[in-house]
Amino acid sequence: MKKVVLAFSGGLDTSYCAIHLAKDLDYEVYSAAVNTGGFDAAEQKELEQKAKELGIKHHVCLDVEQQFYEEGIKYLIFGNVLKNHTYPLSVSAERVFQAMAIATYAKEMGADAIAHGSTGAGNDQVRFDLIFNVIAPDLEIITPIRDQKLSREEEVEYLKSHGIDKDWKKAKYSINQGLWGTSVGGAETLTSNQYLPEEAWPTSIEHSDTQIVEINFEKGEPVGINGEILDPVSTIKRLTELAAPFGIGRDIHIGDTIIGIKGRVGFEAAAPLIIIEAHRLLEKHVLGKWQLYWKDQLGEFYGMLMHEGQFLDPVMRDIEAFLEHAQTHVSGKVIVKLEPKRFELQGIESKYDLMQSKAGQYGEMNAGWSGEDVKGFTKILSNSLLIQQGVNDD
Amino acid sequence: MKKVVLAFSGGLDTSYCAIHLAKDLDYEVYSAAVNTGGFDAAEQKELEQKAKELGIKHHVCLDVEQQFYEEGIKYLIFGNVLKNHTYPLSVSAERVFQAMAIATYAKEMGADAIAHGSTGAGNDQVRFDLIFNVIAPDLEIITPIRDQKLSREEEVEYLKSHGIDKDWKKAKYSINQGLWGTSVGGAETLTSNQYLPEEAWPTSIEHSDTQIVEINFEKGEPVGINGEILDPVSTIKRLTELAAPFGIGRDIHIGDTIIGIKGRVGFEAAAPLIIIEAHRLLEKHVLGKWQLYWKDQLGEFYGMLMHEGQFLDPVMRDIEAFLEHAQTHVSGKVIVKLEPKRFELQGIESKYDLMQSKAGQYGEMNAGWSGEDVKGFTKILSNSLLIQQGVNDD
Amino acid sequence: MKKVVLAFSGGLDTSYCAIHLAKDLDYEVYSAAVNTGGFDAAEQKELEQKAKELGIKHHVCLDVEQQFYEEGIKYLIFGNVLKNHTYPLSVSAERVFQAMAIATYAKEMGADAIAHGSTGAGNDQVRFDLIFNVIAPDLEIITPIRDQKLSREEEVEYLKSHGIDKDWKKAKYSINQGLWGTSVGGAETLTSNQYLPEEAWPTSIEHSDTQIVEINFEKGEPVGINGEILDPVSTIKRLTELAAPFGIGRDIHIGDTIIGIKGRVGFEAAAPLIIIEAHRLLEKHVLGKWQLYWKDQLGEFYGMLMHEGQFLDPVMRDIEAFLEHAQTHVSGKVIVKLEPKRFELQGIESKYDLMQSKAGQYGEMNAGWSGEDVKGFTKILSNSLLIQQGVNDD
Amino acid sequence: MKKVVLAFSGGLDTSYCAIHLAKDLDYEVYSAAVNTGGFDAAEQKELEQKAKELGIKHHVCLDVEQQFYEEGIKYLIFGNVLKNHTYPLSVSAERVFQAMAIATYAKEMGADAIAHGSTGAGNDQVRFDLIFNVIAPDLEIITPIRDQKLSREEEVEYLKSHGIDKDWKKAKYSINQGLWGTSVGGAETLTSNQYLPEEAWPTSIEHSDTQIVEINFEKGEPVGINGEILDPVSTIKRLTELAAPFGIGRDIHIGDTIIGIKGRVGFEAAAPLIIIEAHRLLEKHVLGKWQLYWKDQLGEFYGMLMHEGQFLDPVMRDIEAFLEHAQTHVSGKVIVKLEPKRFELQGIESKYDLMQSKAGQYGEMNAGWSGEDVKGFTKILSNSLLIQQGVNDD
Repeated sequence: MKKVVLAFSGGLDTSYCAIHLAKDLDYEVYSAAVNTGGFDAAEQKELEQKAKELGIKHHVCLDVEQQFYEEGIKYLIFGNVLKNHTYPLSVSAERVFQAMAIATYAKEMGADAIAHGSTGAGNDQVRFDLIFNVIAPDLEIITPIRDQKLSREEEVEYLKSHGIDKDWKKAKYSINQGLWGTSVGGAETLTSNQYLPEEAWPTSIEHSDTQIVEINFEKGEPVGINGEILDPVSTIKRLTELAAPFGIGRDIHIGDTIIGIKGRVGFEAAAPLIIIEAHRLLEKHVLGKWQLYWKDQLGEFYGMLMHEGQFLDPVMRDIEAFLEHAQTHVSGKVIVKLEPKRFELQGIESKYDLMQSKAGQYGEMNAGWSGEDVKGFTKILSNSLLIQQGVNDD
Repeated sequence: MKKVVLAFSGGLDTSYCAIHLAKDLDYEVYSAAVNTGGFDAAEQKELEQKAKELGIKHHVCLDVEQQFYEEGIKYLIFGNVLKNHTYPLSVSAERVFQAMAIATYAKEMGADAIAHGSTGAGNDQVRFDLIFNVIAPDLEIITPIRDQKLSREEEVEYLKSHGIDKDWKKAKYSINQGLWGTSVGGAETLTSNQYLPEEAWPTSIEHSDTQIVEINFEKGEPVGINGEILDPVSTIKRLTELAAPFGIGRDIHIGDTIIGIKGRVGFEAAAPLIIIEAHRLLEKHVLGKWQLYWKDQLGEFYGMLMHEGQFLDPVMRDIEAFLEHAQTHVSGKVIVKLEPKRFELQGIESKYDLMQSKAGQYGEMNAGWSGEDVKGFTKILSNSLLIQQGVNDD
Repeated sequence: MKKVVLAFSGGLDTSYCAIHLAKDLDYEVYSAAVNTGGFDAAEQKELEQKAKELGIKHHVCLDVEQQFYEEGIKYLIFGNVLKNHTYPLSVSAERVFQAMAIATYAKEMGADAIAHGSTGAGNDQVRFDLIFNVIAPDLEIITPIRDQKLSREEEVEYLKSHGIDKDWKKAKYSINQGLWGTSVGGAETLTSNQYLPEEAWPTSIEHSDTQIVEINFEKGEPVGINGEILDPVSTIKRLTELAAPFGIGRDIHIGDTIIGIKGRVGFEAAAPLIIIEAHRLLEKHVLGKWQLYWKDQLGEFYGMLMHEGQFLDPVMRDIEAFLEHAQTHVSGKVIVKLEPKRFELQGIESKYDLMQSKAGQYGEMNAGWSGEDVKGFTKILSNSLLIQQGVNDD
Repeated sequence: MKKVVLAFSGGLDTSYCAIHLAKDLDYEVYSAAVNTGGFDAAEQKELEQKAKELGIKHHVCLDVEQQFYEEGIKYLIFGNVLKNHTYPLSVSAERVFQAMAIATYAKEMGADAIAHGSTGAGNDQVRFDLIFNVIAPDLEIITPIRDQKLSREEEVEYLKSHGIDKDWKKAKYSINQGLWGTSVGGAETLTSNQYLPEEAWPTSIEHSDTQIVEINFEKGEPVGINGEILDPVSTIKRLTELAAPFGIGRDIHIGDTIIGIKGRVGFEAAAPLIIIEAHRLLEKHVLGKWQLYWKDQLGEFYGMLMHEGQFLDPVMRDIEAFLEHAQTHVSGKVIVKLEPKRFELQGIESKYDLMQSKAGQYGEMNAGWSGEDVKGFTKILSNSLLIQQGVNDD
């Protein structure tokens, strides 16, 4: 009997897939969920239970939280990656690591096929297909939801006819929670002119005061909060706990999907936004002008390819080498003030802070150079413009 | 008698320059102020009076507000220019247009020299020198403050000895107000770890409520507020009036000065920040992926050269041609919610909105393509990675 | 009866298509050839005759030579586009204009489908499909060769069975000739380590001497040879006649195809290579440093999208606006020495030549600045490095 | 007595400096020459003798040939650096390493000043000043030639008056020979329209035949010729011996100097040009599309900063990390045909050759994908253009 590994979320779509793969396509169905930081033990248990109810042969939860940070988030921080100046790639990056985990698992356990429940109108299908194609090129990819375009009602009916009778009520907002942020889709995000209402956001606002938080960075990685040394993953989680109840990190991303249409999605990503902006500020103090310039360009491109599921392109490893090298002096702490629905970068402290150098102090005349030096500087800088003007205005 | 045109602000430094140029260097002193949007009639009157008291031969106020918008701000909007992801170039861009106006005036009125009161530790000296060198290469540039490095006390004493006895009290925060934002310097901005206190900001917060504002864009230019058609300069001014009392637009910029040291300065720029972010959002809805990509790169570079006073470099005109062409469909309105110390982009409406196309709708399966098409798409996209993997992993 | 427009070359593949479309698919077959500069009247006549023999309902030759130059080649020159530093996009660019002409014709004449004879392993299929999809989205695309994967023998047999009995001998080298160069494929180009032999090249070497040629440019466009004013298309053709018999312009391009595999193809493109290198040299004399820098980046990207058939992407029009603006002063003449299998750029003459400015002369001390100015210049340039060193080496 | 280290070439200018520093400025003069590959033992001996005749206290020859390759040339190869698509930075890169060696030596031996003989109109003065400023900020920089602007006759007369009476005849062409190429300046290079004559080139043409050479690369470094394993420096030297007598590698560079004027200089660089083009060809076979794209951009920028003496900018180290990582699979051999005044890249062999992959073969239909896949691919690729068209053409 042929085996299929199903990327399983426990929802209506993937439940339909589980039955359809077994009953209509005669597969032995194995399911896999991937924890990239959003799952707790109870949820894992619940998912396992759901798999059992659907008659799935075996369910696994693949834990790649640490790998997700080490091979993904870390470089998103180094590159200050905010897609279209807004979105920290909360779901995009997560999908890549989920796909890699599932493809690797499917290959290792000798599956003949991989199935996923993506529809045909979003980015996820491309991320999954692309990475499955590369990592497990010999395995068939089965996508019942995309291929059959059933309505929810038809899926519910089908499941009922196979003895699965549950209340598949659709949440008003579809939520996708992960370590690097939570996406929020709903009626408003399908429009261009409506914002998400208060009730849509996963975390409600509990604070009306302000709070100072200090984030420690070591070679570009977030390694602690308020003086307490933490590993990066714990730093992210702790910061999320602190900042999300301020309503911080909410926004809407609108951008080009990989399949060429525009997509709009809300997200809540308190820790990612704070960490990236704090990291960026620290870099402004410790890096040179051209480092900042090229980091921006490479970071933007890195984010684009990550977003589009092209994480395995070899240029990504080359860019990571650049970004990593540029972090040599990105150490210090950043002071952040949390306020309701916003945060304020107060400043930084770093032994590599170029602003506090003895050799040059902004706003004060310095022993290092004279007014004559600056005159010479601008005189020489003017040369090319003067020549162009002389030649072209004749 | 040789003539000098002095860039005149009425403050201690340029007052010192006025006397020094006349008494010690034997110049006939003409003074010029340049209005780039920050001056009202009363201030101009006052400045004229000050010039008279100092014995300045003739004072003019050169009005370049409209030119500043047409040749400068417009392209900063088209390019979504925020230096280091933060600073709308409030002062930087203004200086460029002030320098051009003064150099042109000095040349036209037959001056032998131009004088400015910049110190030797900032960006302004380079912007002034550079543009003077290019536009008026035959005129000497005189910079007493930079060259003599006098203390405030010495300047006050000098003026007193020449019969000018005023209360030159230094403001706690040095403020530079213009159409495209106001800069704020003070004790805190000389540190790396302190934020500006409430009292430092030019506009105090008067609102605790929220307010919806709609901004109209026509081919990338802001042309109205809340349904009222306004020219761009008036749109900027109106929006400043509306948004600044919310405490919106405050931040601190830290970046590389042209002379290679790091500089940190506060700024309040409610309208510039709102307009740029609103414009950027509109662009996300109406431009293609590669347009957004290249606009980012060119806009960042354009901002860098503008910031560094290299506005007259011919590449700037080429970039402007690109940016202008890319605005063809950037028309529509953007809905913005003003809140205390923050604003929220609610959404946009545009007849060029690519998201509301019939041809492709995010999140819903579309008649335009099938699941098979996407499978083919990802299969072909995988080719290069599969080949690389096959070859390199052997 | 449904109508199909077939892109027709008169070769075995498209002859097969013509019969197949009529006999097996019941289409009324119209054929179209597109002249982008490679066709003379005799060849057009011959093609018409072949169409008649195959029973094609109506054959047209669409002439887009001038459009190809105005909307394509011109910008390839402005951008100095050589794909992978080598290939002037001889065939790539031509295909784009052929596809646009055919799609437009098919739409205008009310066709139900468009057919082309591309195989499934190259770039052309993507260029055709992509442009047909965009310009004529309602027309079906039929690609019998790609879909059926027949051998040459099967095609010959099929045609014979339909009364078409010709000598379909395959040339040893497949040649594709156009205004902007000729491609050459053969056994060697399928390897990675073999060069094309002398016999493979379309033009044989007739000269062993050298010859000086002067090319005139006006705002970046080639407008004459050796003092004779010619329109750009005639300039290209004249230069080809002069230079190709020197064996100039031969090379092999290896690059990534749109479908992700590497492809290698020979080409002979005497005029394109000379014009681009001559144009580039002229630009080095008349443009500023940053203009050259950005032209390089935009030109490379423009070439990539053109090569990949994405000519209709809106960013292409924005880049064209940049490139066109940058040509304002690219006027003058370039002196080129033709030698067997190579050419040598001897120099340029232009009234916009920045090197011959009075204001600054290389290698000689100039009145425009002093040694002290350069000292000041380098002192200020050193600031950031000194500060970094001071801070980071502690 | 204060000590000065003089960068010494033995020519008229630096001989003048030696006497001037000792007699007029009362320095104890130490001289240093730096070998970056151009010096043999006899030349070093001769230079030492000249120093002695001028009464120089002590002369050293600092050998940095290996360092020049390891820290400079290697990355110029990795980045395929040809300034303005032409110039391998023969002299530019050399100067940087000479300046670093001299500054380090001067600091170590306790000098109070460094002197060099550059004029005020070229790039070298900036490279020297800049690197001296950064590495030895406490040492004065003395540049008598730039400051005093003496004529050759005045210098000769001055030396004669101090007992140094030699025949300082000026060569018709000024030659600067190094490991990475030789520069040639003369009357023609001061014009824009004249090419250098045969007699100007350092190596005369001895071959009229052709010769096949195979160059071995290992992770991007040239490590052998014609099957013989050699270290990179020896590979460069061997290739120069083989190829220069063909007249290969001659060209003229025209570009922007650091001080803003245009400069034109001839060069002969057989090995650098062949190695870079061979390396680039190998990369086209083994690297992916985006790797090639970003290597181009970073390589061009790296070359610009190297050319302008900004080698110590920290971004250079970050770029090197990228370039180095991208060389992982750049191993194999490149077959080159040497001909009089030109070379032809014949092809490559590499186990990482992506063109010879089983998974995808250009020009032939492949088992890896179907015509339907390509149709799906182009359908999806068309989406964004179709949508834009639909929205914008209304």
